[in-house]
Parts: sequence; structure tokens; C-alpha cells
Amino acid sequence: MKKFFLLSILAMLTSFIHAQNADYKVVFDVTSKDSINYQTVVREASLIRESNPDANIEVVVYGQGLDLVLKDKSTQADAVQQLISDKKVSFKVCAMTMKRNNVDESQLLPGVEVVPDGIYEIISKQHEGWGYIKVAH
Amino acid sequence: MKKFFLLSILAMLTSFIHAQNADYKVVFDVTSKDSINYQTVVREASLIRESNPDANIEVVVYGQGLDLVLKDKSTQADAVQQLISDKKVSFKVCAMTMKRNNVDESQLLPGVEVVPDGIYEIISKQHEGWGYIKVAH
Amino acid sequence: MKKFFLLSILAMLTSFIHAQNADYKVVFDVTSKDSINYQTVVREASLIRESNPDANIEVVVYGQGLDLVLKDKSTQADAVQQLISDKKVSFKVCAMTMKRNNVDESQLLPGVEVVPDGIYEIISKQHEGWGYIKVAH
Repeated sequence: MKKFFLLSILAMLTSFIHAQNADYKVVFDVTSKDSINYQTVVREASLIRESNPDANIEVVVYGQGLDLVLKDKSTQADAVQQLISDKKVSFKVCAMTMKRNNVDESQLLPGVEVVPDGIYEIISKQHEGWGYIKVAH
Repeated sequence: MKKFFLLSILAMLTSFIHAQNADYKVVFDVTSKDSINYQTVVREASLIRESNPDANIEVVVYGQGLDLVLKDKSTQADAVQQLISDKKVSFKVCAMTMKRNNVDESQLLPGVEVVPDGIYEIISKQHEGWGYIKVAH
Repeated sequence: MKKFFLLSILAMLTSFIHAQNADYKVVFDVTSKDSINYQTVVREASLIRESNPDANIEVVVYGQGLDLVLKDKSTQADAVQQLISDKKVSFKVCAMTMKRNNVDESQLLPGVEVVPDGIYEIISKQHEGWGYIKVAH
């Protein structure tokens, strides 16, 4: 009887911890070359950080999204730099996308991190319980 | 030995309950001003509700999606109203998006609910186990 | 005391198993009639399979995405066929979308599977822990 009581407590605790876990963590998926989408994702990331001191944001760029993080092409270079200076925000770009476009690390905005596979990065975050937002309109 | 047996039972039960939990709950993410996307989301929501008496649907509108829920601009006003009259469907709009567009509650279709932050609304639903569908084409 | 110890071990084991579970499983959501999106999803699926012998991929086609899997209309027929010949890749199309477009099974590329409801297929995969990627740009 006592054992069942303990087991029930454990089950309830587990549920509770799980439910409480809904802190603000979000991974944005950017595959667009449309500058409106770039404007959108930096605005959304900035707004979230302004209102939520504990929020964690990761922007994953792959496919046609590459321009967002390129020194010579980004229409949001200043905003991206500002966001990267925030320890709770990171920008990650897919190495396979860079290779296909003959882009090397020197062409990236400072602080942009390279990941081997953008899609795997995103689904890993999803698996860890991060929220997922596709940036498209 | 008996304790381990009980613990195993608990673990199996937990897995079972988790697996059984796949009921039809879906949050739609609308950030488009393209009326084809508005048509799509109301058609999909209606079809789901027609075939699934227990399905729960939430449509979250933010960014450029705002027009879908505005009295004066929605191309799907009737369909949205019809859906909102269904207790298992809700439409939620982001207060920050409304503010940025100088829109107040009186301009919303009746029954549309305001949430402080559309993205947080979406990732909270994801965290609670709701399916996520980005509406884009 | 011993009981609590056992319960703690169980809790840790459960977390560990959950965390280890991040294998490469991804469901792609295709609702576009834009051939760039078709090109993108077959390229991404092929690249993932080339680098990850254990990865599982499912491409769910509904709404305006139908053309991708039609014999007479797909711009990626060969690539889709190649992918389908891989046991770890499947293409599924929504029966409701087919009906609305007066398309029957004979018009599908060989090996494409029909599911009753594309959205339910996607959220079921999400619920089972698969990663989700919306294909849009």
C-alpha cells in the first residue's frame, strides 16, 4: 500500500515537473530569401528577449535562408549583431548549405555559429522540448 | 524484487498512457496576409471538426496574419464566425501584433480572443502535446 | 529510504532514455505548389539519408502540395521514386486532398501511400517524437 502511495507521488511529481517546464525556449526555422521574413524573425526575437529575461532563442538558417547571416548580403546585419551580443540568443547556420553555396566562415556575420546539419539542429531542439516556429508568410 | 516489478509496471503504464494520448489537438500558426492561406486554415479546421467530434483546434494569428480576424478585412469572416461558435475551436490573436498595427478589440471578429504573445501561446500548446501546423504554401 | 533510492534511479533512467532518444526522425509538411519547395524537400531528404544510415523520413503531402506525388505533374518524379525505393523513406498523401482534386490512386507515383488525413498523420508523428519541418520559403 505504502509502495503504491510512493509510486503515485512520483507519477504526480513527474507530471508536475513536466508541466512547469514550459519556459520560453524557441527555435526559429529560416529557409527564405525574402527580406520580410528576415525582418520578422529579428523583430520577434528582439521582442521576446525584451519581455522575457529568461527566454532562450535560437535561429537556425539553412537552404535559401543563408543571406540572413552573410556579411555582404544580410538586410538585417545590425539587428543580427545586436541579438548575437545577447548570451541567450544564438544564430546557427547549416554547414551543408554553406558548402553548396561556396560560402566559408569568413563571410558570416561575427558570432554566427556553424552546425553540421541545420535540420538535425532543429529537430534536436524540438526533442529537448524547445518550441518550434517556422518563419514564413 | 517485488519493488522492481511494481516499478516496471509503473514505467509501462506511463508509456502506455503517453502513447494513447495522441488525440486530435492542433494549433495552427498563421502569419500570412495571403488569402489563400486564410481559405486553407478555415477549410482544414472545418474538415477536422466535421470528422472528429473530440478534436480541439486553436488558430493563432500574429504578424502579417492579423487581417484574418479583423471585421473590416477578413476574407473569411463568415467561416471564422462559424468555427468560433464551435466550443472546440478557438481563434487567438497576439496583443503585440494588434498594438503594432493600432488595432483594438472592437475591430476583431466577435469571439476572437486576445493573448499577450502569439508565439508563446503556440509554444505553450506544443509543450502541452498539441500538434503544430504552420499555415504557409 | 531504499524505496526512495529506487524511485530516484527510475526517474533518472527514464530521463536518460528520453534524452538518448534523439535519433534522426523527421516528418516534412508539404502544402506548396511551388516547384522550388519540391526540389528542396527531395534534396533535403536525400542528403539526410546519405549521411545518416538510420534516419527515418516521412514526407506528408496535402493541400496544394499534391502535384509533388502525381505521375503527370511532379517536377521531381525521378527523385521521389528514388527516395521511395529506400525503406527508411515514405511519401504519404492525404485522401481528402485527393478527393477534393478528383485524383485517384492510379494517378500517384508508384509507392506513394494514401493516409486518411494528412494533418492527423503529421501530428501523430510529432506526438511519437518525430521532428517536424514545414517546407516553405
